[in-house]
Amino acid sequence: MKLYEKLADEMTEAVRRGVFAAGERIPSVRQASQQHGVSIKTVLHAYALLESRGIVETRPQSGYFVRDAVATAAALDEPRLSRQPAAQTPPVAAAVDVSRLVLSTLRSIRAHDAVPLGSPYPDPSLFPWRRINQYANAIARRHASWNLIDDLPPGNPELIRQIARRYAENGVPVDPDEIIITLGATEAINLSLQAVAKPGDTVAVESPTYYAMLHAIERLGMRAIEVATHPVHGIDIEALAQVIARQKIAACMVMPNFQNPLGFQMPDARKQQLVELLAAHEIPAIENDVYQELYFGEARPSTLKNYDTKGLVLHCASFSKSLTASYRIGWAMPGRYRTQVEKLKFLNTLTTPSVPQVAVADYLRQDGYDRHLRHVRKVYRQQASIMTAMVRRFFPAGTRMSAPQGGYVLWVELPERVDSMRLYQAALARSITIGPGMMFSMRDDFRHFIRLNYSYPWTAQTEAALKTLGDLVARMA
Amino acid sequence: MKLYEKLADEMTEAVRRGVFAAGERIPSVRQASQQHGVSIKTVLHAYALLESRGIVETRPQSGYFVRDAVATAAALDEPRLSRQPAAQTPPVAAAVDVSRLVLSTLRSIRAHDAVPLGSPYPDPSLFPWRRINQYANAIARRHASWNLIDDLPPGNPELIRQIARRYAENGVPVDPDEIIITLGATEAINLSLQAVAKPGDTVAVESPTYYAMLHAIERLGMRAIEVATHPVHGIDIEALAQVIARQKIAACMVMPNFQNPLGFQMPDARKQQLVELLAAHEIPAIENDVYQELYFGEARPSTLKNYDTKGLVLHCASFSKSLTASYRIGWAMPGRYRTQVEKLKFLNTLTTPSVPQVAVADYLRQDGYDRHLRHVRKVYRQQASIMTAMVRRFFPAGTRMSAPQGGYVLWVELPERVDSMRLYQAALARSITIGPGMMFSMRDDFRHFIRLNYSYPWTAQTEAALKTLGDLVARMA
Repeated sequence: MKLYEKLADEMTEAVRRGVFAAGERIPSVRQASQQHGVSIKTVLHAYALLESRGIVETRPQSGYFVRDAVATAAALDEPRLSRQPAAQTPPVAAAVDVSRLVLSTLRSIRAHDAVPLGSPYPDPSLFPWRRINQYANAIARRHASWNLIDDLPPGNPELIRQIARRYAENGVPVDPDEIIITLGATEAINLSLQAVAKPGDTVAVESPTYYAMLHAIERLGMRAIEVATHPVHGIDIEALAQVIARQKIAACMVMPNFQNPLGFQMPDARKQQLVELLAAHEIPAIENDVYQELYFGEARPSTLKNYDTKGLVLHCASFSKSLTASYRIGWAMPGRYRTQVEKLKFLNTLTTPSVPQVAVADYLRQDGYDRHLRHVRKVYRQQASIMTAMVRRFFPAGTRMSAPQGGYVLWVELPERVDSMRLYQAALARSITIGPGMMFSMRDDFRHFIRLNYSYPWTAQTEAALKTLGDLVARMA
Repeated sequence: MKLYEKLADEMTEAVRRGVFAAGERIPSVRQASQQHGVSIKTVLHAYALLESRGIVETRPQSGYFVRDAVATAAALDEPRLSRQPAAQTPPVAAAVDVSRLVLSTLRSIRAHDAVPLGSPYPDPSLFPWRRINQYANAIARRHASWNLIDDLPPGNPELIRQIARRYAENGVPVDPDEIIITLGATEAINLSLQAVAKPGDTVAVESPTYYAMLHAIERLGMRAIEVATHPVHGIDIEALAQVIARQKIAACMVMPNFQNPLGFQMPDARKQQLVELLAAHEIPAIENDVYQELYFGEARPSTLKNYDTKGLVLHCASFSKSLTASYRIGWAMPGRYRTQVEKLKFLNTLTTPSVPQVAVADYLRQDGYDRHLRHVRKVYRQQASIMTAMVRRFFPAGTRMSAPQGGYVLWVELPERVDSMRLYQAALARSITIGPGMMFSMRDDFRHFIRLNYSYPWTAQTEAALKTLGDLVARMA
């Protein structure tokens, strides 16, 4: 290995480990030359290599800066939406069955001790699980005989108060009496959908959409209609308006913040437009906001609830992505459908276990949730940047990417000839998992897309996995 | 207080505390006279009073025995089923909405720090919660970063193995691959019903039936048809056959062991008859067997699964009544509907939390579940006997009772003019809760019935509450 390559690798490693954060300036050429005891020429060579790898960029008269994938990737690599834009070929409502593919994917991810690029879940080692378990233990000791009847729906009052407080602090209008504790956001979404629509009804979703939305529709025997969704602006409101004009839509399910898989944060103006369009037709909006705390920007983004004047937004969220996945604590704020959702919660699972509810409430009240979140946000933002740079480095020409503004998944469009199900199988044989694009739609538009999870710490193994993936893609393209 | 009354009270107390168990002989008149230093005449007087209270009975040439409510009450106080036997007035399928009443009842039970005769749940202080929490803590410590993806449906393999082992040991044929871990039996029942029937379908249930069955039907927009159910033999198979002849039945939901509220154990021959009748018409049977471990007899009773040759029995159970309610671990063995139920589990709540699954598995493998169960069974049997005797003592003539053969609830038929909803309100005002009969049916047949929970230790407060209830009933009758 040449000297300049060695230096470039060291710098890459430093960026990966967060020594230099996205947007930060790296040492000047002169400084680096002194620090590493190498010539100016070697440093220039190394920095050029870093630039070609997509890890740094030069700014005139300023020096070299760690590239911020979040800020730059959208403009560079905006994924095309679909072979057929919605305006040209009207989407057709379809009965749904994507759960088989999703379950088998999750199973193989579990079965193989593989690189978890395909996991839909955040790296649990970042969670403050030790602190939360301590609260749970203390509660279990305090209450010799915890009764199932405690904390029946709507749920533990203190937990509800803590959730309401966080919303209020972030400018989201909230009435604590509206909050119903559920078993993760999955149950919140299921109950919300059942509260507003009947079997056979048609529900509008984003395309691509988070598959849990399709699952909820499938479970209740409803039909989904996919609406083109822009990787930066979110659901195409024009296209949705056309769909509404053409047929009866019972509900619209969206993920306005850090959508899985696209990662966008819908601009405020468009959130408002969406709420107003739906309100004009009295169509309930089911808002999945599980990534609300995982923003890369300055502040927590607004929600559809901020623009809801008619109680038509059923807001669903959970702690599973930001605090603890194993406690399975989620909630719904179902607007005017509160009574129905509460009743359905009772019918569906009777109650959410009490100790986890109280443990989370205690943690929120007494512990460092905000500190934890600041750390996680920084880590994810950093790792988004590294993952973006690595895909750019290892994947063949014609590859495009999302520019996640929060959350922990990257959406990658491969050259059109690549079948992500074949890639998935080939990767699995090499102990690498990916999320094939077909999980996110009932249409065939995302066959050459994959979703990559960047929540896990970046290691040499991850890098090797990404290189292997890139090689496989190149061979298939 | 007279001397013989004092002695009678002491003996009553001894029975209550389990000094003398149901079926045991109490000291002879001569022994008692010596032990207590009172005359033979006083003892005879006291024993006569005990007999009139229903606490002991005389057996010719043998002496006085603690009355076994379980063995004797059925013959003495067999509740009438309904004003209109099913054979005369055909039951009419009805859309269901009993959940409002049930939820408000549970709420008032929680809100009032009241005598919990109305609670549907067992006294949690009998659970080995300390041991189970220890296992959970050990697991949480062992697995720094428990992943949500572990123990996806069907569930933790070791837990499934332990459940299968218990069935096998009790003569229930079971294939571990059939077991799917759920969030309590509530979810198992919901998923089972959704797997076999569609909205609008008609489902046959017992009358009275455990309200969770009605909830499941209500949740899925189905219709329930109630079939007369005998307090000792279970669902009236003749009446069910007539219903099946008359209309299409999508499923039949029953609780063959220690039915809530009736407490019967369906005889084996009738279980077989029921399975055969349903199999002849290819009708799936959803069997709720949550009280399977709480038998008063010699051995665990058989299940409908024992007679199922076509895979039409969907067996549902949980640990919530016998080990821990707060962990919410249940399961389904759905026969030929296994694939559908597993998929619905995934769609409904994604996964059952992993730590509780593993904690229960560890407890089952390493701890004293059987010893715990032997204790609980003895306690419940004793307390069933005491509760029966006390109702007999304090309630007015015309009161009849079930003879529970397991579980922890007593079903009481009050004189016909008593409205149990009014009784419920009046009792609540005196900090006593009861389960009003109307929770167990959509028909008006059980307005003068109540369900009483005898799982809590018998105290002076319980006795006072029962006396108050008896007085209220007498006044209303």
